[in-house]
Amino acid sequence: MDLNKVRIVCFDADDTLWANEPYYQEAEQKFCALLESYLPQHTTAQELFRTEMQNLPLYGYGIKAFTLSMIETALRITDHHAPADLVDKIIGYGKVMLDQPIELFPGVTTVLQQLSHRYRLVIATKGDLLDQERKLKKSGIAAFFHHVEIMSDKKDSDYHKLLGHLDCRPEQFVMVGNSLKSDIMPVLAIGGYAIHIPYHMTWAHEVIQDPVEHERMLTLESIDQIIQYFQ
Amino acid sequence: MDLNKVRIVCFDADDTLWANEPYYQEAEQKFCALLESYLPQHTTAQELFRTEMQNLPLYGYGIKAFTLSMIETALRITDHHAPADLVDKIIGYGKVMLDQPIELFPGVTTVLQQLSHRYRLVIATKGDLLDQERKLKKSGIAAFFHHVEIMSDKKDSDYHKLLGHLDCRPEQFVMVGNSLKSDIMPVLAIGGYAIHIPYHMTWAHEVIQDPVEHERMLTLESIDQIIQYFQ
Repeated sequence: MDLNKVRIVCFDADDTLWANEPYYQEAEQKFCALLESYLPQHTTAQELFRTEMQNLPLYGYGIKAFTLSMIETALRITDHHAPADLVDKIIGYGKVMLDQPIELFPGVTTVLQQLSHRYRLVIATKGDLLDQERKLKKSGIAAFFHHVEIMSDKKDSDYHKLLGHLDCRPEQFVMVGNSLKSDIMPVLAIGGYAIHIPYHMTWAHEVIQDPVEHERMLTLESIDQIIQYFQ
Repeated sequence: MDLNKVRIVCFDADDTLWANEPYYQEAEQKFCALLESYLPQHTTAQELFRTEMQNLPLYGYGIKAFTLSMIETALRITDHHAPADLVDKIIGYGKVMLDQPIELFPGVTTVLQQLSHRYRLVIATKGDLLDQERKLKKSGIAAFFHHVEIMSDKKDSDYHKLLGHLDCRPEQFVMVGNSLKSDIMPVLAIGGYAIHIPYHMTWAHEVIQDPVEHERMLTLESIDQIIQYFQ
């Protein structure tokens, strides 16, 4: 893949620069265990996902939306007989998530350091505004980025808008991310380049069943491998 | 006040272009009435405000944060004996708010139409990302704006960053808004101009007790009065 024309390297944040999905799955496991006397854990997980999908157009992405959906699911599963302590615990799970530590994936700082000399680096991430800002601050890598875009969604039109904002043509833009659905396919669709670095956990909503192949796309195992493509 | 150098007119959105605080106060009144058998309504309102202030650093602004704080307050007030139906109702209040209609204040469209010929118009607003985008879309005035900035806070440093992003000097920037604390004082502090249009309802967190006077600040009664200052 020839990245000669690229001048902006755009990174997804969650599960690309640092772990995020494990914190959601940990909270979900605690949530399902909490409701075990009402419903098998696997069924509770399905119910939670159903609530999340119903609420997505109204709540959007992020931990506050997830917390509200957990509470709503608990009320439904217990047929509105959930003890208040249970709701209290769920609120606590959400707060723990919002206070999660940020551990950068191995090689992230080196990669950003090397690329920042020759490219404009950008972050494009979904989620709660304040939460994503806080994570970036905690990460210690904010200074490498020319621009941080916190987006309510990552569809073709959202990337189109981002490129307009960055005054950048699609062939000058490469997106690095873990989600085929949110980071890779929409960027390929508008004519940009994409580097897919799968993470071992993927939220069901982001899962794409069919394999994706494209001449403007690379798949790598870890972020430190991207450097060789920018020589 | 001489606005000759101004090239960017920046508007706050909630309670400046359309009503917002009344929806919060309506939800709060329903919430306090719901808990009347546990605590006098006025005390519940104080408890809710206390919870909101405690959660602000973690949750930030917006309806999802407000809903989570209502639930937490209800659990505390009822000493964790809140019936699940009560929590369910609170979630419903939040969803109604997220689906609220947008009614522009009188004169808004005319003002934007007239100013858009000679100035770059910008929106700077706090709140949930998706919710603010949805309100702007519903409002029908999105096309007038060159840029929309949804901010996690509106302090001096946030405006400083916005101006950097807009490539605009402070004396080229005027902010129009209803909140002295969030729209007016920080903009004056960094050297910009400010037009204060008070709204009849103000959230306790935004209230400034002392009157503000400044040579780069105007106070007007309604938004249609701003046109005469841009002749």
